[in-house]
Amino acid sequence: MRAAILHGRGDLRIEPLEDAPLAANEVRVRVAFGGICGSDLHYFHRGAVGNFAVRQPMVLGHEISGSVVEVGSGVTGIAIGSKAALDPSKPCLTCSYCRAGRSNLCENMRFLGSAALFPHVDGGFAQHLVLRQDQVIPVPDDTDLLKLSCAEPLSVGLHAVNRAGSLVGKRVLVSGSGPIGLLTARAAVLAGALEVTSTDIEDAPLKVARERFGVTRTFNVAAQPGALEEFASAHNPTGYFDVALEASGSPLALAGLFGLMKRGGRIVQVGMLPQGETSLPVNVLQSREIELVGAFRAHDEFRLAVECIVRNSIDVAPILSGTYALDDATAAFERAGDRKQVIKLHLAL
Amino acid sequence: MRAAILHGRGDLRIEPLEDAPLAANEVRVRVAFGGICGSDLHYFHRGAVGNFAVRQPMVLGHEISGSVVEVGSGVTGIAIGSKAALDPSKPCLTCSYCRAGRSNLCENMRFLGSAALFPHVDGGFAQHLVLRQDQVIPVPDDTDLLKLSCAEPLSVGLHAVNRAGSLVGKRVLVSGSGPIGLLTARAAVLAGALEVTSTDIEDAPLKVARERFGVTRTFNVAAQPGALEEFASAHNPTGYFDVALEASGSPLALAGLFGLMKRGGRIVQVGMLPQGETSLPVNVLQSREIELVGAFRAHDEFRLAVECIVRNSIDVAPILSGTYALDDATAAFERAGDRKQVIKLHLAL
Amino acid sequence: MRAAILHGRGDLRIEPLEDAPLAANEVRVRVAFGGICGSDLHYFHRGAVGNFAVRQPMVLGHEISGSVVEVGSGVTGIAIGSKAALDPSKPCLTCSYCRAGRSNLCENMRFLGSAALFPHVDGGFAQHLVLRQDQVIPVPDDTDLLKLSCAEPLSVGLHAVNRAGSLVGKRVLVSGSGPIGLLTARAAVLAGALEVTSTDIEDAPLKVARERFGVTRTFNVAAQPGALEEFASAHNPTGYFDVALEASGSPLALAGLFGLMKRGGRIVQVGMLPQGETSLPVNVLQSREIELVGAFRAHDEFRLAVECIVRNSIDVAPILSGTYALDDATAAFERAGDRKQVIKLHLAL
Amino acid sequence: MRAAILHGRGDLRIEPLEDAPLAANEVRVRVAFGGICGSDLHYFHRGAVGNFAVRQPMVLGHEISGSVVEVGSGVTGIAIGSKAALDPSKPCLTCSYCRAGRSNLCENMRFLGSAALFPHVDGGFAQHLVLRQDQVIPVPDDTDLLKLSCAEPLSVGLHAVNRAGSLVGKRVLVSGSGPIGLLTARAAVLAGALEVTSTDIEDAPLKVARERFGVTRTFNVAAQPGALEEFASAHNPTGYFDVALEASGSPLALAGLFGLMKRGGRIVQVGMLPQGETSLPVNVLQSREIELVGAFRAHDEFRLAVECIVRNSIDVAPILSGTYALDDATAAFERAGDRKQVIKLHLAL
Repeated sequence: MRAAILHGRGDLRIEPLEDAPLAANEVRVRVAFGGICGSDLHYFHRGAVGNFAVRQPMVLGHEISGSVVEVGSGVTGIAIGSKAALDPSKPCLTCSYCRAGRSNLCENMRFLGSAALFPHVDGGFAQHLVLRQDQVIPVPDDTDLLKLSCAEPLSVGLHAVNRAGSLVGKRVLVSGSGPIGLLTARAAVLAGALEVTSTDIEDAPLKVARERFGVTRTFNVAAQPGALEEFASAHNPTGYFDVALEASGSPLALAGLFGLMKRGGRIVQVGMLPQGETSLPVNVLQSREIELVGAFRAHDEFRLAVECIVRNSIDVAPILSGTYALDDATAAFERAGDRKQVIKLHLAL
Repeated sequence: MRAAILHGRGDLRIEPLEDAPLAANEVRVRVAFGGICGSDLHYFHRGAVGNFAVRQPMVLGHEISGSVVEVGSGVTGIAIGSKAALDPSKPCLTCSYCRAGRSNLCENMRFLGSAALFPHVDGGFAQHLVLRQDQVIPVPDDTDLLKLSCAEPLSVGLHAVNRAGSLVGKRVLVSGSGPIGLLTARAAVLAGALEVTSTDIEDAPLKVARERFGVTRTFNVAAQPGALEEFASAHNPTGYFDVALEASGSPLALAGLFGLMKRGGRIVQVGMLPQGETSLPVNVLQSREIELVGAFRAHDEFRLAVECIVRNSIDVAPILSGTYALDDATAAFERAGDRKQVIKLHLAL
Repeated sequence: MRAAILHGRGDLRIEPLEDAPLAANEVRVRVAFGGICGSDLHYFHRGAVGNFAVRQPMVLGHEISGSVVEVGSGVTGIAIGSKAALDPSKPCLTCSYCRAGRSNLCENMRFLGSAALFPHVDGGFAQHLVLRQDQVIPVPDDTDLLKLSCAEPLSVGLHAVNRAGSLVGKRVLVSGSGPIGLLTARAAVLAGALEVTSTDIEDAPLKVARERFGVTRTFNVAAQPGALEEFASAHNPTGYFDVALEASGSPLALAGLFGLMKRGGRIVQVGMLPQGETSLPVNVLQSREIELVGAFRAHDEFRLAVECIVRNSIDVAPILSGTYALDDATAAFERAGDRKQVIKLHLAL
Repeated sequence: MRAAILHGRGDLRIEPLEDAPLAANEVRVRVAFGGICGSDLHYFHRGAVGNFAVRQPMVLGHEISGSVVEVGSGVTGIAIGSKAALDPSKPCLTCSYCRAGRSNLCENMRFLGSAALFPHVDGGFAQHLVLRQDQVIPVPDDTDLLKLSCAEPLSVGLHAVNRAGSLVGKRVLVSGSGPIGLLTARAAVLAGALEVTSTDIEDAPLKVARERFGVTRTFNVAAQPGALEEFASAHNPTGYFDVALEASGSPLALAGLFGLMKRGGRIVQVGMLPQGETSLPVNVLQSREIELVGAFRAHDEFRLAVECIVRNSIDVAPILSGTYALDDATAAFERAGDRKQVIKLHLAL
């Protein structure tokens, strides 16, 4: 079988790879599609994500779907040939975070296609993959595997929404409309937000937000830099938004949210900042009892995302911008960052 | 009657003041004691608290106790002559924050001795004061009125603890051991924290924390700058503290907390920063799902603080550093900032 | 002006009534429509609701909408002539429940058309009504006042959903599909439930649930008594539903829910039982950590219900079964209980 | 090695038992002490607990402590010879409840000394026992192993308190003062309850509650049947207690609580009812938004209980009523139910 292996900055090669052995409670899958994520792009363009540099050849990818080809001993409820959603998270299940129901914070997490550990954990842009059985969630035969490969980014949006508390009747701002921002906005609509306002610095994704994902209104904050002022303290003395979901990773966007929030409002930080830190108006946070909380990946929201895609209660089609053959992976990676044309590109494996 | 009226920076005068008229549902009290708070000191030394400058002569003070001298029509359950705790908060009760049970965030709050509104709201360093009946909480005759005047700062500590969620079995850090930090630590002990660690840059308050307030361990972070390193990631790879209550107002102290927290941990910002904003490690917050939340004044914790003092389930005596006659108010204000000798000074009115 | 006044069991008279005087902070409204609620029917048919018997002539009604005809001194933001939603709840704003943000539990509540107090509080089936200004919520001119009069029952459904906690991704059962059950189901759909299952003993409202309110599946539990067995322990050893909203008031329905719930699941009791108490499987509740919680009327969900109707994010049209002239009120009351034909009837005032 | 094996109702034999083999990730311990629990007594006297009948000889016991004698491969951080707390819960870690952080509700739980599964899971009244490594929590050498064997019942009390939400400043009623009721009351005191009121039908445990566990007041409800009336609606129109922890298992006690609760109050059912179900005032629950929730065993509260005993922040000595040699187990079981003399008896293994 073959895989998309990153050898260094900009050096992505399609190469043969040995199949891994199959242990008890494991499942071998044939990967069908793999979505290219922002972190894959960081590895490709910079050779690193945050502090995690690629120090050895590593298979990229963690937004995948496929079908079951072999099951190890002890595996139950997973039939050979079945289509399946593939969860890139393999938490240890035994650390204090796992025991507390927060496996996304597991201290021994093995996440597909990540250089956080050494040796690195290979990712899912490979034709065959061995996963622990709880990472493989069978789905009905008529499931669209391309859409299903969006379960992981959708789960991130659902997790961000869960971190915000109940959104029923709330005024929600989603800052940034990349794939995660868009799916977060879609999840906020699903969760009963009274209205969802989305921002970005490009028009194209905002059009999707408005026309396909049920967002109430959008603002291009590059084209209209002061556009959010109408929600600021001058016009709404005690703020406008109950919840903000920050998915742009822009330090300025984050700092600007504090003036737009109702007292007691909650800001959920989903995006990663380029520099890691930034200056924030702490006294505003303190005196208005604003809450700033992190949202990292997802936990059982992955299974919920699968349910939403299988039932079509959330249609992810609007974020699908094209699929490339595995051999054309480099071309896909080079085009994936063109935000005027592309929301998310996929590889057909 | 007479009051301590601030006329400008450093210019505090003891002057006669007209008694206010008494309306329906109001109560006139004889104030007994008034504690000098950090914000009183800011008004005295800088002429302002944060952005709120004193623009007209204003009576200072909001940590007060006294006895009832007159009741208006419609007042029930408050007997003339009764000792009473006096709540400096007068929320409107009708705005969306009040209706939601968060009166401390009331958009029409009238808080004693505050320049946030203009004309300013006079404070409680006056012999007579007119309050709305819900600000007056009768207490048993044998209540110590000096201790009772600590209900307001104690309520701030209790509110900070409530903002942290249940502390049962939690490892708690209290950063800063001024009066609010000490009472917050005491409240955390009351709330069943497994252990409470306090810090400061002076030894004297840390001794009180350890010996009188049940704190588990203390660190003078001025004397031992790296003292908290033992809790940092290197030794505790996924953090040590479940909850941090930041009461120092030090930007460096706040930024330093992120490395000490368990994943999913909560930092409650109680203190006010001198500059209002500071640089924070947002990516650490995001990837560890840390929560940074503000705590502002108190709500029904004022009544709880009164109960704790009346029942002596919390003894505030260890923070009492001396009482000055009203005529010596300026001397009291000048000494109140000497943290080697003083935790909290009071005026006898 | 005239009103529908209940003089005793079955004795509803349309009679002239003096306009009440208008005090400060009050608003006089011209009531447009009034929906007939189950409690109105209980007063009409039995002369009582639960333990509250009608002991003097009382105007019925609390599901109302109208327009502003006069405003008292101190009223701001409410224009004469404006259409308005009319909240039947007048909490005291000062008791411990109000201060805690739970005004629906106010110990001094004055609720329109209720015999809980004596003298009774007259209701809204009157052409003119005087309300405290916070009970009057102006709406845009193009708002449909008939639909708007459903804000109160919709608020009850939204409150029940809020009592259930976040429904995002949850499997929800709504037991009973009277007007409250239907609106509760609609609110659960809004709140992002993965699926909503509704039950009733009549087909007609179940058809509305399925075809108009987005409910996933329905069961007529009179026609198919064992229909819910498929969710019971035998087939789903650890239960099926995360949340049940009990709106039927049937003791058997309530007791039967415990076997259908997932461990840790929550049952919200919205309906009132005819006898007040019933036998429940407490050991099942204990050993599976099931939660049984009450939901009573609504709090700020009234304002949310108004927003949902004004924005049409919830269309209440499917529950509108007809409007009667005030003079035909008795006919309306007599027909209102015919569940094969009627969901909710209204009076045009 | 020998164990206390129940062969049938009243037939408890001390017999030799083969040591179990030791697998990877397992630990063999020498059990030191075992506390006799109410469920052990039910097995002994009735041959069953609830619906779970003893259908084959079964070792009883699950409140145990001991020391490590052998560790299997893969075990880390557990030294041979170390004293250890022994957690009787072995959840599967992979079911939906475990993943959600509610392992006490695990659908594949293997709990020591329980006839819920067949073959039954042998208990801890045995000299040697093999446990999964996460069930073995090493403690310092100077830990009192007799007190440490109370970690399990203490964990049940701590879990009940956690199910109640924050108790800071709350008025708490603990109904029933058997070992679990007493430890629940002690946990409520630890958690910062404003006051704790305990009841029982015997004086002896109430004396312990008052004099050793910090309970505010106690009532013998057998001696004074109407004693709790002072908290009932007549004197406190909207109730007195914020939280009730029902640990008596008395249907009458449970039903009587509803009239004593504040609106919005929470009742936590810890005790098991003899008949499994009882009649409850559902309309009171509904109209006052009372919450009735189950508490079942414990989750990570076991580790907290161990910490509390090791640090002596909770001294369990007051519940220790005597220790019997293993050979005298039957005598211990026969005396264990004498509530005038005994709170909890132990076996020395």
